[in-house]
Amino acid sequence: MQRVGVAILGLGTIGSAVATALEERHDLIAERTGQQLVLRAVFERTPERASRANLDPDIIATDLATVLSEDGLDVVVEVLGREQPAADYMVRCLNAGFHVVTANKEALSKHFAEILAAAKQAGRGILFEASVGGGIPLLVSYRQILATNRVTRVRGIVNGTTNYILSQMASGGAAYADALAEAQRLGYAESDPSGDVEGFDAAYKLAILASLMSGRHVLPDEIIRTGITGVTPRDIDDARKRGGVIKLIAKAELGNDGELALSVAPEFVPNDELLAHVHANYNAIEVVGDCVGPVVLSGQGAGPLPTASAILSDIVEAVRNGAAANPAFPLGA
Amino acid sequence: MQRVGVAILGLGTIGSAVATALEERHDLIAERTGQQLVLRAVFERTPERASRANLDPDIIATDLATVLSEDGLDVVVEVLGREQPAADYMVRCLNAGFHVVTANKEALSKHFAEILAAAKQAGRGILFEASVGGGIPLLVSYRQILATNRVTRVRGIVNGTTNYILSQMASGGAAYADALAEAQRLGYAESDPSGDVEGFDAAYKLAILASLMSGRHVLPDEIIRTGITGVTPRDIDDARKRGGVIKLIAKAELGNDGELALSVAPEFVPNDELLAHVHANYNAIEVVGDCVGPVVLSGQGAGPLPTASAILSDIVEAVRNGAAANPAFPLGA
Repeated sequence: MQRVGVAILGLGTIGSAVATALEERHDLIAERTGQQLVLRAVFERTPERASRANLDPDIIATDLATVLSEDGLDVVVEVLGREQPAADYMVRCLNAGFHVVTANKEALSKHFAEILAAAKQAGRGILFEASVGGGIPLLVSYRQILATNRVTRVRGIVNGTTNYILSQMASGGAAYADALAEAQRLGYAESDPSGDVEGFDAAYKLAILASLMSGRHVLPDEIIRTGITGVTPRDIDDARKRGGVIKLIAKAELGNDGELALSVAPEFVPNDELLAHVHANYNAIEVVGDCVGPVVLSGQGAGPLPTASAILSDIVEAVRNGAAANPAFPLGA
Repeated sequence: MQRVGVAILGLGTIGSAVATALEERHDLIAERTGQQLVLRAVFERTPERASRANLDPDIIATDLATVLSEDGLDVVVEVLGREQPAADYMVRCLNAGFHVVTANKEALSKHFAEILAAAKQAGRGILFEASVGGGIPLLVSYRQILATNRVTRVRGIVNGTTNYILSQMASGGAAYADALAEAQRLGYAESDPSGDVEGFDAAYKLAILASLMSGRHVLPDEIIRTGITGVTPRDIDDARKRGGVIKLIAKAELGNDGELALSVAPEFVPNDELLAHVHANYNAIEVVGDCVGPVVLSGQGAGPLPTASAILSDIVEAVRNGAAANPAFPLGA
């Protein structure tokens, strides 16, 4: 049995769920993978979060250096959110010789080349299954397809908040503002919802998928982005009459000229496509390979439990394969 | 760059597609994985198949011992189909020290424990992504979920032929016999269609999924099996009126008593489920984990190209991870 020391950076909703899951699933994971995952250190600066987490206070530190000096540490889980200091911290953890598992699409999409270079240099794994599609085994699938296929298109519903709002508008005829208010009441949308409804979150995720597809660092800024704030009940009714729905679709498509067309925008999706039937806060991604054809994966794209599930799998995979689990592409900017 | 020697057992539709894909995708796979896959030997006893394949006749042998004595061999791809001699050959290949990649659900489902034991004993990989769901990255996803979740249910449409027939009956109002004849004309169904329409093929695949879920060797015979030959246009019309469709559903469900309920049968699927919208010869499988929730994967479940894609990925994975890629469970019978 292999003992694996884990650190968590950030005790927000996701970090707390990971801490709980590490404890509750210790035996199950040990039985199935031969790895005993033990939480050894936590980085958290907000005292309320630290005390709420019901953890041994001795393992909680307010600076990264203390966390990284912990004995027996193997993998650092970065769930701070936002661009900085998360991106810098990931590089520091890799440089210090630890595998890094992250759910942070913003930091990763903006600093992918730099983080990957640090991982390569250090010979450590950087895993990010939870950063796109939450608990959906998307990246492991995508990686399998990319190993042997030319992927010509990846597109999908990668933001649960906007899919919930559009689903509510379609099923109940609600206006955008009312559906947004309902999403906020249920905790699906933040009080400042712009990251979701303006398509930023979807663009970060698409940038990661497009980078893996093209082998270069695709920046979120390269993506033509339109949010859902302008979608009206009339648009949705028109779509219904045409035999389909409106979905916020993130799309990377390889043209015949070899150029990548990148967009996040509300699009008409006909009812004969699976994506049209992905409701509520679910996500779904379609990957089209020249050998395998179209493959669709769907599931819960966010939420503490599905995200923790993906993070735990990544810890296991990081220990098992290390740097061999990293994208094979150079991903130069 | 790592040179990898590959042998193929059987030059049927799938074996020929693998031989072609190995050559056509040599450079792409080398660039993405660092592995140079080279076809070194082929087992095929039917002269017409051997000559049609457009391969160097020197690498084609009519006995297994000759194939296995080839220099520089690492991985054997078993695509003979049927139970025997395929199952025995897989064990022989593993015993001889080679990784085995198979698409053969019948041989695997009937001899899973024995084949896995041989792989364990030899310290070699046994990979079978193509045996369930064709090109869908199902097993790699399932494996990721199983590492950290209690899976309580796996169900889906795992036979493309019957899904094509039921889809034709639903969209065109065709009678079963007419839809079957059309499927045969298109090459989706064999002249003796019983393996598909009586649910044997689905039962083999379900037995593999249920074995991975439960950690014991679930035999195809344990599955309560009903085919689609009794489905009438009236059943399908009734389902439509109830707001759904009839699909051939393979299902393994863990009861509160810890017992596994196993069935292959035509079932009503309501339209609010993704599975209801999986048309033509496509497959889709839903996996429900206690952490990740329900995840659905869909794509082409058969056909030479998607199947070859999965086989090529498995070759790469076998070389990369060897026996570490095998199911972690004991799978005793």
